Amino acid sequence: MTSEHTVRFDLVVIGSGPGGEACAKRAAQNGLSVAIVERRELGGTCLNRGCIPTKLFLGATECIHELAAQSKFKLLSGSIQPNLPALQKRKEQVLNGSRQGLRKSFEQLGIALFEGSAHIHDASHIDVQLSDGPQAIEFGNLVLATGSAPSAFPGLEPDGERILDSDGILDLTEIPESLILVGGGVIGLELGRFFSRLGTKITVVEALDRLAPFEDPDVSKTIAQLCKREKWKLLLGKRVQSLRSTAEHAELTLESGEELTADRVLVATGRGPVFDGLGLEESACTQDSRGFIQVDEYLKAAAGIYAIGDLNGQALLAHAASHQGQYVADIIAGKTSAPYSSGPMPWCIYGAPESIRVGKMAEDMRAEGLSPVVSQYALAANPIAQAHALAQGFIKILWNDGKICGVTAVGHGVSHLITQATLMVSESWTLADAHRIIWAHPTLDEALLHAILADQTAV
Amino acid sequence: MTSEHTVRFDLVVIGSGPGGEACAKRAAQNGLSVAIVERRELGGTCLNRGCIPTKLFLGATECIHELAAQSKFKLLSGSIQPNLPALQKRKEQVLNGSRQGLRKSFEQLGIALFEGSAHIHDASHIDVQLSDGPQAIEFGNLVLATGSAPSAFPGLEPDGERILDSDGILDLTEIPESLILVGGGVIGLELGRFFSRLGTKITVVEALDRLAPFEDPDVSKTIAQLCKREKWKLLLGKRVQSLRSTAEHAELTLESGEELTADRVLVATGRGPVFDGLGLEESACTQDSRGFIQVDEYLKAAAGIYAIGDLNGQALLAHAASHQGQYVADIIAGKTSAPYSSGPMPWCIYGAPESIRVGKMAEDMRAEGLSPVVSQYALAANPIAQAHALAQGFIKILWNDGKICGVTAVGHGVSHLITQATLMVSESWTLADAHRIIWAHPTLDEALLHAILADQTAV
Repeated sequence: MTSEHTVRFDLVVIGSGPGGEACAKRAAQNGLSVAIVERRELGGTCLNRGCIPTKLFLGATECIHELAAQSKFKLLSGSIQPNLPALQKRKEQVLNGSRQGLRKSFEQLGIALFEGSAHIHDASHIDVQLSDGPQAIEFGNLVLATGSAPSAFPGLEPDGERILDSDGILDLTEIPESLILVGGGVIGLELGRFFSRLGTKITVVEALDRLAPFEDPDVSKTIAQLCKREKWKLLLGKRVQSLRSTAEHAELTLESGEELTADRVLVATGRGPVFDGLGLEESACTQDSRGFIQVDEYLKAAAGIYAIGDLNGQALLAHAASHQGQYVADIIAGKTSAPYSSGPMPWCIYGAPESIRVGKMAEDMRAEGLSPVVSQYALAANPIAQAHALAQGFIKILWNDGKICGVTAVGHGVSHLITQATLMVSESWTLADAHRIIWAHPTLDEALLHAILADQTAV
Repeated sequence: MTSEHTVRFDLVVIGSGPGGEACAKRAAQNGLSVAIVERRELGGTCLNRGCIPTKLFLGATECIHELAAQSKFKLLSGSIQPNLPALQKRKEQVLNGSRQGLRKSFEQLGIALFEGSAHIHDASHIDVQLSDGPQAIEFGNLVLATGSAPSAFPGLEPDGERILDSDGILDLTEIPESLILVGGGVIGLELGRFFSRLGTKITVVEALDRLAPFEDPDVSKTIAQLCKREKWKLLLGKRVQSLRSTAEHAELTLESGEELTADRVLVATGRGPVFDGLGLEESACTQDSRGFIQVDEYLKAAAGIYAIGDLNGQALLAHAASHQGQYVADIIAGKTSAPYSSGPMPWCIYGAPESIRVGKMAEDMRAEGLSPVVSQYALAANPIAQAHALAQGFIKILWNDGKICGVTAVGHGVSHLITQATLMVSESWTLADAHRIIWAHPTLDEALLHAILADQTAV
């Protein structure tokens, strides 16, 4: 395969999502010769089928939610009609702009872009199927950043007709009258909120006994209260037995025997790693029990091969992938030799209410044999939350030995607190640290300060 | 005057705005006996006639602005009708709730509240005119926190009819068809934005050559662009000669001779200290050239008397007042003996766009003989700004010797960046500090990160 046509790079990255992008760019900045391979649209799931389109949809429709909230107090009245085809067109414009920006930034850094499917040939070569034929590439190191895709339990797979996954539902141009969310986690909640604003009647079927099951139980409770206020039907602790599309609607049968119908069903039960066609069998890479690629403490999957981002299953988050990508670029360039450490990982759920989490929750502390101590603040007392007529929610600070070890919040706009919260957890702030700066008034940020200063109680 | 009816407190605070409140509470927590005196509503300007009602008005009407922004892209259509009387009623409910909360918090801390006008009697006594007669109070220390009120140039005073100050305009129950803002600073801009959303036609007359004249000139430029897009008429570098109300409208004559009429005029040309009736002539307090009470580096105005907050004119901001109040409570309790230092002061202008400033601007650095270096980021590239269809604006980072010494921003929701920006300036972040944490994606906060990492250029 190595021939006069083979090209060689110090680093070849497969996948141009946030992990691959960050890794390729950092490696180029570190002086390595770098190629990046992408078989679909530049930017991966985050840009094309994940964070960015969902935030665009939620941002564009936020005023529908706000109008409803203010109308309850009779401060405003009126109506807003969404135009889903126009929103889809805008989405394509925005994503196209970002993809072009990404392409240009690769060029500027001298990163070679190969658009086609990659296949591992041997321990130092891959082949890429370009539109004009195969290209052999020799690599010094290979970084796999091929990401994840929606996954479904056997028998509950989307059919692309009325039963969709998050990829499919993001392309709808007709507003469904009714939508059943199978899965009440972050993906289901964000997309459910979007369609709820468009007027779609929402039902959630969640196998566990609460929405947002990875969050603090009080966060789940607040989210459920607000969903019910918006007339969502919540079927918690219920499992789906079967799903099928008919000409008229989607049919869902629960294990309990109950039958539901709706215009559409969104299956949002999880995501799995993507490496089809990559020829991993040609490498020494192995999978963990969930199917993700196993990596060591340096994110190495095999000799000369790293696996970063969703593919290794450590945290299915764009910013986790970027962080890992930069680390691996530094490891390969010899700029660091320490094992990988992410530090506290920020998690957000967008829409209304928003929720955030960083560091430990009470149950995490108990599991570690620690005694959780909590201080908290109700957003009802915050003037910015009051002004947005969405004062439900709270901020909880988790303390360990006088130091902040976790922050959890739910309510209006709390995603804006995530960086500050991450810093507080990362640096184990004490009470005294709250006074390092003047906190501007009136801000949502002050609610963090008040939560820090509130009475601490063992929970 | 000292008699069997005289009561004594270690500390007497006059004024229950943010400065007085913070001072009284911290002093009580420090173990002092504390009284607070208030002649108007509890909570001072901030709660009753300043930050809180303006943020409530802006928050309640934000969806009007958002609908307009999204409608330009045809993503949404529709109309929203504001109900100003209902908004006034809601304002009263919210403020009442906060005042009650404040009253209760004083009770819980054992702070004695005297509701009436205070008059300085001698170096250790004040009299308070309560509803049932005068009360003599002996103090160990006295803190003056009587705040500020709108001020106007002679001949341009509001008449309370068609010519209003910020106090008066906040109580309107009828939406003016047209409004002239005399003064294009923070107060004029925030109130102008509110009425603009209600459909009022806005004209700004500003004596200086730009809006928001205390901000970075590029911030002023962006604000002006967006005001023009909303059809505001901007008369910059123009001075008002005369103002008068008639039965039909308010009439304004510029020094240039040009005449303007409108339904209402808001005079927002500044604020001055309030100490009428206080009997400052009985004390050794003095005024500076602007009329504010002079204080030393410990915020002391005379033996045993401190002046905090707007009254001393250092920074007319609620959070500046609170910070000073806490400091003075610590000084009096012997918990600190260091001169007062605020650290970097955060400034925000709310509405759309928002703007923030903390630390130095380029012109500040030049004035200090430093060579300003700037890195900046356009919000157009931020997915959260994009989603809100308001992608104008930027973040500027000012660097001195490789350390962040100032942050300025204008655009969608940038008030949410103020705490993080304050911390960065306060701690003189270097480039390396940007990597102390994982920045969640997608967030507005990331725009700060990108601004930090952007190319640095001398300006």
